[in-house]
Amino acid sequence: MKSDIILLGHGSGGKLSHQLLDDVIIPRLSGVAQKDQNDAAVLTSPGGRLAFTTDSYVVDPIFFAGGNIGDLAVNGTVNDLAMAGARPLYLSVGLILEEGLPISELEQVLDSMKAAAAAADVRIVTGDTKVVPRGKGDRIFINTAGIGTFEHDREILGSGARPGDRILVSGTLGDHGMAVLAGREGLELQSPIESDSAPLNFMVADLLSELGDALHVLRDPTRGGVATTLKEIALQSDVDLTLEETQLPVSDAVRGACAILGLDPLFVANEGKLLAFVAPQQSEAALQIMRRHPAGRQAAIIGEVTGQSAGKVFLRTAIGGLRSIEMLAGEQLPRIC
Amino acid sequence: MKSDIILLGHGSGGKLSHQLLDDVIIPRLSGVAQKDQNDAAVLTSPGGRLAFTTDSYVVDPIFFAGGNIGDLAVNGTVNDLAMAGARPLYLSVGLILEEGLPISELEQVLDSMKAAAAAADVRIVTGDTKVVPRGKGDRIFINTAGIGTFEHDREILGSGARPGDRILVSGTLGDHGMAVLAGREGLELQSPIESDSAPLNFMVADLLSELGDALHVLRDPTRGGVATTLKEIALQSDVDLTLEETQLPVSDAVRGACAILGLDPLFVANEGKLLAFVAPQQSEAALQIMRRHPAGRQAAIIGEVTGQSAGKVFLRTAIGGLRSIEMLAGEQLPRIC
Repeated sequence: MKSDIILLGHGSGGKLSHQLLDDVIIPRLSGVAQKDQNDAAVLTSPGGRLAFTTDSYVVDPIFFAGGNIGDLAVNGTVNDLAMAGARPLYLSVGLILEEGLPISELEQVLDSMKAAAAAADVRIVTGDTKVVPRGKGDRIFINTAGIGTFEHDREILGSGARPGDRILVSGTLGDHGMAVLAGREGLELQSPIESDSAPLNFMVADLLSELGDALHVLRDPTRGGVATTLKEIALQSDVDLTLEETQLPVSDAVRGACAILGLDPLFVANEGKLLAFVAPQQSEAALQIMRRHPAGRQAAIIGEVTGQSAGKVFLRTAIGGLRSIEMLAGEQLPRIC
Repeated sequence: MKSDIILLGHGSGGKLSHQLLDDVIIPRLSGVAQKDQNDAAVLTSPGGRLAFTTDSYVVDPIFFAGGNIGDLAVNGTVNDLAMAGARPLYLSVGLILEEGLPISELEQVLDSMKAAAAAADVRIVTGDTKVVPRGKGDRIFINTAGIGTFEHDREILGSGARPGDRILVSGTLGDHGMAVLAGREGLELQSPIESDSAPLNFMVADLLSELGDALHVLRDPTRGGVATTLKEIALQSDVDLTLEETQLPVSDAVRGACAILGLDPLFVANEGKLLAFVAPQQSEAALQIMRRHPAGRQAAIIGEVTGQSAGKVFLRTAIGGLRSIEMLAGEQLPRIC
């Protein structure tokens, strides 16, 4: 009586739930047999300080060029821990499945989670699965929470930007958001756009160890894009920022697709990029560290902290004008992650 | 431009998201202003061993007699940590909101989460909010992940049951499941049934410190009820269990509603009850500890471990027969938590 789609009974906690765990989930996500499972994982605590974060993923569609909701959910939480300056160690996974989801699609998503966890060197240690009736969910939602440890005693906070800091981005803008949008809308693009979904923890580890106190802020520009994230940092740090439009790395494919759709890549989500604020003397070194990593090949210095003030972000345009940048208003791109 | 319902833009990461955080979520769940928030919470690690768990809550309806999805989500994760023998410390909260949800309902749920966290003495330290379009979710889904610490060096596992152990339950069976079902189906009951949703960590702390090595297994019988949970423990521990039907505490209201609906309280979910396996000499002491706590007033010894074998669970019926109990099959009660 095996089913090839998700049934409501798979969420009952009874026999079908146990079958789903034994046949589909545990072989992919966990090395721990159900017989040895308990309500919570017991882990060795690294001591000192812990980082703890959570994110739910509701991206539509669940499969897109360059990834799917599974690797996105692992990389996103790995990156949130890394942006706090932590080394990611452990992840939890909470699945909310819609009745009727093909089990083959679930398997594909779980396989991607396993591969992403291995690539980022984190362990998935605990999980939960719920099922909702058709029309009360959308195929699959995934929550990942994560625990990280600190291998230094610095604080990497959004409030750490200082006048003179150079602003670096680790690569091109808007790839993830445009890949998802293209998939959702069935856009036929001349040059396909792939999501940039990737773990950034190894790049962060190098930045932390090699830049020392010159590294002031780390943040991944996901929902709301680089513009919204920089506006948040400017407000948290009470500084003004100025970006150089000509220095913003944007692929031709993303630039073209954005132009057609009336979107600005500065506001489009990224899932494998980071922003770093670095003391000016170390900014070239930071650029070289980023470029050593596959996800940082197109890293660039895109602006600087121009003053101590009320959290304004300016863009110096290609023709030399100065435009004020605000946070994303409304729902430019819903369900992008 | 304040809205009194959730809009897609509240999930964009931009201005509306920030408004929702500042006006609705942060004042309720967090002592930390948005200005000071980062992608991950930084916590003091207790050192030693950590417990880590996650659960998503998709209960329908979100409000029911005796609680709502908010306190359920806090108590459920608090209890999963406690059942591992850990002291719950920190929670994360991941919200998935359906477009159109009245903000007043969200506020009510968040207020309940805050009160439940205070009652259980845990801190909500990090969170995330996503919005899905109408018809792609169901009002509100909540994921909570939790971190706990160990104040002893014992292992409390599902595999710890030993022949002769007495099986205790901390109170009446099936109250949560029947309260939710009554709410969902609009049942008019003569005596109303309230959910038992409650934190069990203080009761567990007392059991741990006063029973010492005589405490062998702790587990909360949620989805699938007492029967399914006991079957899991029997399989994990390679033992046979025998329950005494006459000793099972069931309220008249739950018994009556179950009879009408053709349900067995042994398979109905609880959200504020625990099962404990205790060495026989200490079973009366365990009963007294449970009864000291408000959630344990009707604690009872309901059976014992009758042999070393292949994980069978038997029920000795009121008339003296012996019935074999299996795991819940199918979806007796979907979306009960």
